[in-house]
Amino acid sequence: MLSPEQVVGELRATGALWDAGPGLVGLRGPVAELAREIESQLRAISRLETDDEWRTPAGVSFETLERAQYFASFPQWLSTASHLSGDESVLNGIASSATPAAAARNAVGAPDTVLPPAVCYSTYAALAGTTIESPLIMSAEGVCWRHEGDRLAALERGWAFTMREIVCLGSDRDVRGLLDRGALHAESLARELGLEATLDVANDPFFAPTSRGRAALQRIKGLKHELVVRFPDGRPLAIASFNDHERFFGEAFDISLGDGALASSGCVAFGIERWLLAVLVAHGTNPSSWPTLSTLSGVFA
Amino acid sequence: MLSPEQVVGELRATGALWDAGPGLVGLRGPVAELAREIESQLRAISRLETDDEWRTPAGVSFETLERAQYFASFPQWLSTASHLSGDESVLNGIASSATPAAAARNAVGAPDTVLPPAVCYSTYAALAGTTIESPLIMSAEGVCWRHEGDRLAALERGWAFTMREIVCLGSDRDVRGLLDRGALHAESLARELGLEATLDVANDPFFAPTSRGRAALQRIKGLKHELVVRFPDGRPLAIASFNDHERFFGEAFDISLGDGALASSGCVAFGIERWLLAVLVAHGTNPSSWPTLSTLSGVFA
Repeated sequence: MLSPEQVVGELRATGALWDAGPGLVGLRGPVAELAREIESQLRAISRLETDDEWRTPAGVSFETLERAQYFASFPQWLSTASHLSGDESVLNGIASSATPAAAARNAVGAPDTVLPPAVCYSTYAALAGTTIESPLIMSAEGVCWRHEGDRLAALERGWAFTMREIVCLGSDRDVRGLLDRGALHAESLARELGLEATLDVANDPFFAPTSRGRAALQRIKGLKHELVVRFPDGRPLAIASFNDHERFFGEAFDISLGDGALASSGCVAFGIERWLLAVLVAHGTNPSSWPTLSTLSGVFA
Repeated sequence: MLSPEQVVGELRATGALWDAGPGLVGLRGPVAELAREIESQLRAISRLETDDEWRTPAGVSFETLERAQYFASFPQWLSTASHLSGDESVLNGIASSATPAAAARNAVGAPDTVLPPAVCYSTYAALAGTTIESPLIMSAEGVCWRHEGDRLAALERGWAFTMREIVCLGSDRDVRGLLDRGALHAESLARELGLEATLDVANDPFFAPTSRGRAALQRIKGLKHELVVRFPDGRPLAIASFNDHERFFGEAFDISLGDGALASSGCVAFGIERWLLAVLVAHGTNPSSWPTLSTLSGVFA
């Protein structure tokens, strides 16, 4: 087994992976194909649960995240999108500057939107104030952004990364059903890909000190589980998570069930680039040693 | 035929389309499925030209865009990604604020990356300083960002939108070959989708006054063509573009051919949401009146 750093080093050396900035990578060649194959498998898993596949927006409003108490929970990750003002004199100054990139960086305005830290915030925002059939299960894949400062590492911890989510809104029982089935699906796929993975109790890295109690409570109640692989040095990598939100988002976004009760919610989340890295660490960067992809396609068909 | 505003109004009314902010929309249900079908068709078109499918990074560096003279050409569209500093006292202030969204907006730092205005900048950045086989043809689909101020309109002109590109680097002749074939492929798909489309000479909306000459030259030399559909009121919508860059990017990014000459480049670009809107304007929002998707899948197989 290679270390993740060796894997990334080999991919960089051949041009199969390149960096557009910290935590921002591109892929081409067989590893890009493998990433798409993993996406197809995860899409097939989602189709076992639902045909309701959404295209979630590329931004989430500040209001949505405020409603979700995101700023108290995970402010450390916040990533936002901004643009220049349309002011002609500002644009002229940039266009004619000898150092236009620096001029543009300095002229960018306050952000207008948040770059999604997860797919499911868009689900709650779209359904806010509604009464839903029980259960509603949706799925989507999208680019998510979490800035993790010095911890950013190619494939392992991207500033931007690709997430497939399956979200359930319904009764407690509906939610637990999805999370249990999602864990079984994820374990099956890990086995097919030749990964040694364990399902562990986990907690979100809530921002201290305001939310320290939430992390403890989450562990005590067993609300978050992760499917974890280990690198050769023993370091863990969570490739999927199974999250029971209880009525937190139902209450925050006023989403009710047909019987008038607040909706419970939960989500299953897969990090595409982490699955890719796990396969490359387990099997190496030579495509001839990867699990045969043609048979994989049949597993969840 | 409906107007685009009527189409978007009907989709909003049923919850099939919702807004996360100006120019940021989500889709679910049959329209989301139709968008994916259009993506599959465009992917099939790209496979006629190349198996070299990349996953381009979610950000483009300021340096790359400076090298591409982007800030002189299109500063008006520039969109960037920022994050908060890791400073604990800043994060504490946001986490404990009574108005945390406003506190976070004010605390965001200068941007670290540009959100891609097009897929192909990542191609030139990845190949900078290299000598390539002739021709190199790659393709990728990705989220692109262009802020168009008051002109943003759902599906028609998104702040964020989805673009499929096919890029060729090679000789002039290689590039013109791709552009010609790309136009034929695009016209075929438009016909299959029941769209009345024309191929028109066009120019990029270069920022005035620094680049006015470039737009005129582009038209005179016939370097840009667009596949255009028209709304019921006659307003045009470009659903694909065919762009001959000559040696501009080869020179800017020092990309050479095997014989030592600078590479020429060109790209074919498709706007997914615009194709979707064109189909909905032509056929309405009721899925039963859409072109039969099952037969479409075979067109480019």
